[in-house]
Amino acid sequence: MITAAVEASFDACEDERLRTVLQSLVRHLHAFAIDVGLTEAEWRAGIDALTESGRITDEHRQEFVLWSDALGVSMLVDALAHPTPSGATESTVLGPFWADGSPLREYGEAIFDSAEGEPAWVYGQVLGLGGGPIAGAELDVWQNDANELYGVQDDDAPEAHLRGRFRTRDHGGYAFLGVRPVPYRIPNDGPVGAMLAASGRHPWRPAHIHLVVSAPGYETLTTHVFDSASAYLDSDAVFAVKPSLLRDFVWSDADGRWSVENDIVLAPL
Amino acid sequence: MITAAVEASFDACEDERLRTVLQSLVRHLHAFAIDVGLTEAEWRAGIDALTESGRITDEHRQEFVLWSDALGVSMLVDALAHPTPSGATESTVLGPFWADGSPLREYGEAIFDSAEGEPAWVYGQVLGLGGGPIAGAELDVWQNDANELYGVQDDDAPEAHLRGRFRTRDHGGYAFLGVRPVPYRIPNDGPVGAMLAASGRHPWRPAHIHLVVSAPGYETLTTHVFDSASAYLDSDAVFAVKPSLLRDFVWSDADGRWSVENDIVLAPL
Repeated sequence: MITAAVEASFDACEDERLRTVLQSLVRHLHAFAIDVGLTEAEWRAGIDALTESGRITDEHRQEFVLWSDALGVSMLVDALAHPTPSGATESTVLGPFWADGSPLREYGEAIFDSAEGEPAWVYGQVLGLGGGPIAGAELDVWQNDANELYGVQDDDAPEAHLRGRFRTRDHGGYAFLGVRPVPYRIPNDGPVGAMLAASGRHPWRPAHIHLVVSAPGYETLTTHVFDSASAYLDSDAVFAVKPSLLRDFVWSDADGRWSVENDIVLAPL
Repeated sequence: MITAAVEASFDACEDERLRTVLQSLVRHLHAFAIDVGLTEAEWRAGIDALTESGRITDEHRQEFVLWSDALGVSMLVDALAHPTPSGATESTVLGPFWADGSPLREYGEAIFDSAEGEPAWVYGQVLGLGGGPIAGAELDVWQNDANELYGVQDDDAPEAHLRGRFRTRDHGGYAFLGVRPVPYRIPNDGPVGAMLAASGRHPWRPAHIHLVVSAPGYETLTTHVFDSASAYLDSDAVFAVKPSLLRDFVWSDADGRWSVENDIVLAPL
């Protein structure tokens, strides 16, 4: 049988972990093809979708990550890497819009020069599992504007639009001025979008702000703040919603802006 | 559990076949990640390999087909599409070097203007299952030269180097002058090559000539003639060898060339 022959071709692989991963990949790929009786036309459609995904991928667009997200593989890998939370803030997907080199900003600074969205004050404390504040933790944050777009998607936006890095102060506090995020469609003009449309799935994600939080001696946390009033919380196109990550955005007439409190608890290394 | 949620997201898919295929793909992809405990670094390595495969793929290079070949998926899909042979010639992979629009050539014509390899006369009959000759069948043939390269890989070769289409004559006969094929490495300067090197597999394929044979009323056959004296017959990098496809190349001092007889039996539609 062909599957056994392919598995055996990896028997001489000296890297035991690589051998395990490749042999398992072969077993599961073959089991998939056999289970559905994959036809030559379907195989060709798969090759074409991968080829087109490669063609559309560049420094601002990552269609392969999008496949992983839309098929729930990203959240599964996240769950495998970060098992049962022990009181620490839960993780969720990084997504395709993180960009390297966001500017380091001051406590309370805005992450935009001008923005379409309604201003939102995001604040809280970064804490250890015992509740003690973590000073000098770094938060890398990014979010979309009211036009649905992230800065990296928007040719008209400045380089660092709606993203930035912040350091917590002595008592673990952080704050920045963002905007209230809005639901948005994952890029759906490529093969992933075609798959969603053909299978009756929508491309929407509920409104959220991304955070990667890191501090010496702690596990780096990749997570979101979800707007608890958003649409699509029960049908996120990338399966990233966890109830513990929902937060209320509160309007203040006096300040003329929303505010959202979001404490973050990091697990020790 | 995330896998169930992703499967359920396809429940509304109206195309029942598409739903079956996508839900099975999700199940098997997730089972693979769970079985090996796929790490975030390994997930990233997978995304990087897919991205690089996309970058290297163009009209002359198909790295995704190469992945399918090197992981035995192509031969598995071939086996699913063409179950137990009933006396018809067995099929094998198309491979990445077939090119559209090969010139129609006359009986006995050479498929090269000049070539490095030793000339080889390839001939035989195309027959039905009952042994009756099939006149007017088309053979689309392509092969490599002694420099290992197919015409589409060789910038210095004429457009139609070592490929051509032939029609069988009244008694089902065909013949053409090719060269004796040589073993060659599948393209190994990309992600598939890196996988082979890291896992201790070689990139070689045994010497062969490709044929696609078609005739009205018969199943189109994609197959090879393997040189029975070639190296690598027991470790083809793409798992495409079937014992029934081996043929002896015979030297003739009188003709100053090799010859190989290869009858082909087509199954009815």
